Amino acid sequence: MEVVQVLHMNGGVGETSYANNSLVQRKVISMTKPIFEDAITNLYISNNFPGKLAIADLGCSSGPNTLLVVSEVVKTVNNICRKLGNQSVPEYQLLLNDLPGNDFNTIFRSLSSFQENLEEQMGPGAAGSCFFTGVPGSFYGRLFPSDSLHFIHSSYSLQWLSQVPEGIEGNKGNIYMASTSPASVLQAYYKQFQKDFSLFLKCRSEELVSGGRMVLTFLGRKSEDPSSKECCYIWELLAKALNDMVTEGVIEEEKMNSFNIPQYTPSPFEIKSQVLEEGSFAIDRLEVSQVNWNAYSSNNGLNGADGLINKDGGYNVAQCMRAVAEPLLVSHFGEAIIDEVFDRYREIIADRMSKEKTEFINVTVSLKKIG
Amino acid sequence: MEVVQVLHMNGGVGETSYANNSLVQRKVISMTKPIFEDAITNLYISNNFPGKLAIADLGCSSGPNTLLVVSEVVKTVNNICRKLGNQSVPEYQLLLNDLPGNDFNTIFRSLSSFQENLEEQMGPGAAGSCFFTGVPGSFYGRLFPSDSLHFIHSSYSLQWLSQVPEGIEGNKGNIYMASTSPASVLQAYYKQFQKDFSLFLKCRSEELVSGGRMVLTFLGRKSEDPSSKECCYIWELLAKALNDMVTEGVIEEEKMNSFNIPQYTPSPFEIKSQVLEEGSFAIDRLEVSQVNWNAYSSNNGLNGADGLINKDGGYNVAQCMRAVAEPLLVSHFGEAIIDEVFDRYREIIADRMSKEKTEFINVTVSLKKIG
Repeated sequence: MEVVQVLHMNGGVGETSYANNSLVQRKVISMTKPIFEDAITNLYISNNFPGKLAIADLGCSSGPNTLLVVSEVVKTVNNICRKLGNQSVPEYQLLLNDLPGNDFNTIFRSLSSFQENLEEQMGPGAAGSCFFTGVPGSFYGRLFPSDSLHFIHSSYSLQWLSQVPEGIEGNKGNIYMASTSPASVLQAYYKQFQKDFSLFLKCRSEELVSGGRMVLTFLGRKSEDPSSKECCYIWELLAKALNDMVTEGVIEEEKMNSFNIPQYTPSPFEIKSQVLEEGSFAIDRLEVSQVNWNAYSSNNGLNGADGLINKDGGYNVAQCMRAVAEPLLVSHFGEAIIDEVFDRYREIIADRMSKEKTEFINVTVSLKKIG
Repeated sequence: MEVVQVLHMNGGVGETSYANNSLVQRKVISMTKPIFEDAITNLYISNNFPGKLAIADLGCSSGPNTLLVVSEVVKTVNNICRKLGNQSVPEYQLLLNDLPGNDFNTIFRSLSSFQENLEEQMGPGAAGSCFFTGVPGSFYGRLFPSDSLHFIHSSYSLQWLSQVPEGIEGNKGNIYMASTSPASVLQAYYKQFQKDFSLFLKCRSEELVSGGRMVLTFLGRKSEDPSSKECCYIWELLAKALNDMVTEGVIEEEKMNSFNIPQYTPSPFEIKSQVLEEGSFAIDRLEVSQVNWNAYSSNNGLNGADGLINKDGGYNVAQCMRAVAEPLLVSHFGEAIIDEVFDRYREIIADRMSKEKTEFINVTVSLKKIG
């Protein structure tokens, strides 16, 4: 699911992986829609209907969901204007950010058909007020001029850390935080999260105008235990596949021990603490939601019409995780073992899914810049 | 040379063509540098040293010259600040525009090394104040929000029309304006230029802040005759190659008669007239320069160190023109004839270059938004 950042650290993935990814993320965006609609509505009305709105999506990736959020934001504001009757629609500067390795060319070449659709849905002229720009760079640093943005959105990107934490050599046999990780490893992961998220908040507060707002969705957890199953299990199962291959001599033990995922899945409390400590933002809403590991499962209201859907939930989830993890694995272990890793991983996942309820936890926070 | 727009109407070109292209364009940018330095200096000082500068390069293409102008602008302003001692460097929003088919990915992936170079040249922190964005779209329409830009630059792009003019069926045997073109054809070309350039000026005036400035370089001509040899000869020689192939039955006559280049190479007077008629801008400077067809020729002060340079001037110029014309030719005549066209074109060019002085004429205009 959380392809957005890591994907592009090491290059592209196949179409199938994108398709899998997009379905989970699309569901998350649709679940959090009331939160960002609420934020943009408050922003637009309380700022006395500004004539221009600059809206950034951080970690936009390149795929069917890339323009989903910005189009929902435009529709929300245009609908407010329509309801008010005499309020003219603002100009939108829509800033799409991801790492420089992201495929911006594909986004840019899709804009004309996106704009046609927008005009069909919102009426003629709707697209003419939208100015799209691509902004390459890491969001753990400044991306935009000071006081230049009204609204920032980011979904399923901020759980990615800027780097693998230092001092986690003791995490042997694991690839992420796990129930068997030493306390020092859990602490090192948390420290990296605090440092990264704090820097993120500081940079964004400089870029937002006074009263600007931000809605962020993390892949996270409910529990206060950072090695909780709800966030770590999916990686523990990948570690199991890799450890099996160590046992069989396919992977060197030392290689396995030095591999760790640069991610942190925070709890609502941890997010809140960091926001309060950094001090630039007030929390408007802080909410938890969950989504099935297998976004194709019958109860999620999504129908896959792209022909890529497989009835085998284990396959779907493994493919989805492959989109995220493959570049990291290839860069550490090399290309040769990849297919075997994911064949094993698929089997392990399918087994677990048949025996227990498996869900990703999302934490969404809606923030308003203080002052 | 004037690859920028047309190139991307129909896809990419080879590396060699880019290299050829870049040398001519680099020379033009270096020749016009005093003009845009002057404009940005006046802008920065007369606007009382704004803390933020938004600078757009229209038709940025993707190659070694893409970041040349914006970096010169940043250096110019940073040098003013350094000279003034206590003036802190502004934040720069650097907006790179070209058609959606341009290769923005390559630009974005080159930014980190560009920023390293900038820091080496300008000192630590210089890159931190530069925020890069890519803006896909045609400049014959709005690209940026209202009142959002301070400075616009465009080099060797604006001679490209938005389309082949209508009503030029009478231009048989020619592919551009030529000495044998009927008056109606010359008029149709000029009308299209007037319409396009007027729309360009209107859009840019809406996007520039009050007092904003613009420096535009056209491939153009000195003479008031639009079919003058100085701007049309290079295309007449390509028409000769094509007509020879018609005579030999390789190309259908009808195909040849319906092929025309969507370009207009204006005179300084025509540019001035259109600026005055449109009414949004005052002319600060209007200058003419010239550059050898063969930018590798010894008197241009440029040394090609890329190993792609050929001693054969005809080859260099034909390759340079191929970068521009190939996509148009392929789309009209198909792929099969291309190599033969350019073999013939190279011979024709080499012959002409050995017998006469061959130069491109550039017209540069520096404009200030009125009001």
